[in-house]
Amino acid sequence: MAKINTEPLSGMRDFLPLDVLRRAYVVGVIERVYQSYGFEPLQTPTMERLSTLLGKYGEEGDQLIFRVLKRGDKLEKALADAPSENSVADAGLRYDLTVPLARVVAEHRDKLPRVFKRYQIQAVYRADRPARGRYREFYQCDVDVVGSASPTVEAEVLAAGAQVLEELGFTGEGGFALRLNHRGVLHALMEVAGIPPALEGEALVAIDKLDKVGMEGVERELAQRGIAPDAATRLLAGMDAAPAGGPDTNGALLDWLGALLAKTQAGPAAVANLRSVLALSAGGPAAPQLRIDPYLARGLSYYTGAIFEIEFAGLSGSGGGGGRYDDLVGMFSGQAIPACGFSLGLERILLIMEERGLFPARLAGEPQVLVTQFDESSRPQSLALARELRRAGLRTDLYPDLDRYGKQFKYGEERRIRFALLVSPREIEAGIVIVKDLVSGEQVETLRAMVVEVVQRLLAAAA
Amino acid sequence: MAKINTEPLSGMRDFLPLDVLRRAYVVGVIERVYQSYGFEPLQTPTMERLSTLLGKYGEEGDQLIFRVLKRGDKLEKALADAPSENSVADAGLRYDLTVPLARVVAEHRDKLPRVFKRYQIQAVYRADRPARGRYREFYQCDVDVVGSASPTVEAEVLAAGAQVLEELGFTGEGGFALRLNHRGVLHALMEVAGIPPALEGEALVAIDKLDKVGMEGVERELAQRGIAPDAATRLLAGMDAAPAGGPDTNGALLDWLGALLAKTQAGPAAVANLRSVLALSAGGPAAPQLRIDPYLARGLSYYTGAIFEIEFAGLSGSGGGGGRYDDLVGMFSGQAIPACGFSLGLERILLIMEERGLFPARLAGEPQVLVTQFDESSRPQSLALARELRRAGLRTDLYPDLDRYGKQFKYGEERRIRFALLVSPREIEAGIVIVKDLVSGEQVETLRAMVVEVVQRLLAAAA
Repeated sequence: MAKINTEPLSGMRDFLPLDVLRRAYVVGVIERVYQSYGFEPLQTPTMERLSTLLGKYGEEGDQLIFRVLKRGDKLEKALADAPSENSVADAGLRYDLTVPLARVVAEHRDKLPRVFKRYQIQAVYRADRPARGRYREFYQCDVDVVGSASPTVEAEVLAAGAQVLEELGFTGEGGFALRLNHRGVLHALMEVAGIPPALEGEALVAIDKLDKVGMEGVERELAQRGIAPDAATRLLAGMDAAPAGGPDTNGALLDWLGALLAKTQAGPAAVANLRSVLALSAGGPAAPQLRIDPYLARGLSYYTGAIFEIEFAGLSGSGGGGGRYDDLVGMFSGQAIPACGFSLGLERILLIMEERGLFPARLAGEPQVLVTQFDESSRPQSLALARELRRAGLRTDLYPDLDRYGKQFKYGEERRIRFALLVSPREIEAGIVIVKDLVSGEQVETLRAMVVEVVQRLLAAAA
Repeated sequence: MAKINTEPLSGMRDFLPLDVLRRAYVVGVIERVYQSYGFEPLQTPTMERLSTLLGKYGEEGDQLIFRVLKRGDKLEKALADAPSENSVADAGLRYDLTVPLARVVAEHRDKLPRVFKRYQIQAVYRADRPARGRYREFYQCDVDVVGSASPTVEAEVLAAGAQVLEELGFTGEGGFALRLNHRGVLHALMEVAGIPPALEGEALVAIDKLDKVGMEGVERELAQRGIAPDAATRLLAGMDAAPAGGPDTNGALLDWLGALLAKTQAGPAAVANLRSVLALSAGGPAAPQLRIDPYLARGLSYYTGAIFEIEFAGLSGSGGGGGRYDDLVGMFSGQAIPACGFSLGLERILLIMEERGLFPARLAGEPQVLVTQFDESSRPQSLALARELRRAGLRTDLYPDLDRYGKQFKYGEERRIRFALLVSPREIEAGIVIVKDLVSGEQVETLRAMVVEVVQRLLAAAA
């Protein structure tokens, strides 16, 4: 028999049970927190019309879309007539969760509440070159508020995101910061520096690389992108001049920006908006983490207001982020719809949690007890015991075969089950059950009638 | 602006929040029950190698696989050189959960326990003609035990499936039956009827249509498939001769089969196996629902032992089913691996639950309280109130805008939120909060310090 390749496709993963339970633990925390903030879940199909996807993610994005082949007559026709990538395909796999949200808002407008607060946790697909932490099938976790321009939206979205991270254990030295800026601040800084509006996009892309390439790198990047040296110098000078440290750095920075940008078109409103977001966050979980950063740019071009980004203490790169984007969700509706959202970097969060051991030792859903089997005659007793434990709410595995105990215990250990129960004819006759601790190897005998209580107590003590 | 088609693709669905919560409720029950039986979750990628999928589902199945286009150079090459359906694609979308299970068992053998008890609830994709209840993206819900030939496996799989249906509310007149048969019984019945082994497959397909076409239809079908009339008559005669009704129909049927098939090759072991499954099920949730049915065939060819099928009272068609298939999971490993599983018809179950109103009136995850906003000055108080309710575990939505109350209440009603809280400057000054019941319209005033307690009590009373 020829060797068959049974690996998952490049960039895709099989999630074995422990992986699934770990992911479910994190998703469970996210859902619970988001629901506690009044967000509701949305799910969209894995496939979308190719026309829905194309042109939404830039030229590079278009290339990364997995295309699904036409079928039947349509395919034959396309194959016969100078076939091309786009002529033989009519659907593509979900590339992000924002375009589907915009489509849903256009399609189901009359069924959605005036303000649509949705979260969505689903896989997306990108034919990118796989690398460590970069997959071709990976999960996004988006929360968005569609239909309100109120700054309470920014405050709520930031609070919910911060609370998720806190509850997952990103605290103390392993904590995080929420960098906060506003597109209007960036516009105004460029206006002050004398960068012409036509080059603002270029300058934004350059500034966005600050974390990666440092100050000198940004300077080179600005020059390459056609920004005049004196404008670049003026733009970057602010970075040194901005106040840092001190008890209320955020306040000092906003005062500094307020003065610097007072005469610009976009500056005053942007600074006022950031003041509102900070004030409305006070007392909530985001407040201690918020750091005004006038040079936070965020790569995507569609933001129109506040922008924010998660920074994990001691780690480079972003753990997610978001902001206000008032012109995007209306792309299919033909009308401007205000929106603001936050995307958690789920795969990154999982990776860091794994490295830092932030998962609980026992995951919800893992089996707790293993009922063994001794021989044909005692089989019904093993089944009856398993039934009783399950009725009491204990996750109970029943070893199916009549193997020797050593093999059964080994199986229990492989499955991280703590206690094995023995019910051979000898125990049945004596009216007892033997409870074996698969970690310590210790055994205790208990009356058959007491077994549920005893196991519950032992599990509680072992937790 | 040209009208853009924002509908989901044909046969695919957007799940709006209430849909997601309803589905999550059902999946939650399934997962809890399966975990209580010691099953663990598996998830596999949406895409598989085309070579993994092709040839596994018959010719018709191959046609229904959604194919994913190659990319880059590989695509160019394929397009240039007499392109065909299979030459331009290198991946396909998951078509079922059994082939991925077999692939995982082959790939991760050393990481899996000796007996692998997994459940898997994921979407599958079939380019079928969409119809009521038939989708191109739909969920399957499979539970399988890989690596044991013990009849306790059948008993456990049946018990878990029955308990899921019971907990979902399929009881009493809206209950279900579990039809139970064995491939060995069918083989033996054919042997007795004188149907040559080479035609057994044909006869099986014909019998499988009994529910749809009735006795005469099966007779026609058998003739069309080349079964000699006298053999067909002998085969069908058993259906009339089989005992029915009475206090222990199952026992009577097995006795009847035992006698009828005593001299056949496969009969005695099959009847003994069914006796074991029944005996091991006694006392558990499957027992009252099990109905031995010697003419239950199940369409799929791969079953090798016990087979079973869910039948909903008063409804035709199957609600799921399964059986033992000892030769399939080894397809990629090159070795025989015993396996037995049960697949719940999730989409069908959801449809019937919807028709019968089996969903709870309030779904877990829905918001419970709406905090309103009055003006700019009271904003921080609204946010603080929302924070306090959330900390107490109440799912709390905050209306983001400063709209008139009528609009805010309407939003709350649209979201099925029961209570709205009012905190205008007047209430703030008086140290109170107004709690408005959005169903009855009634309002009560409560001290600000008591609001969490009052809302919790009102919610409990409204449940």
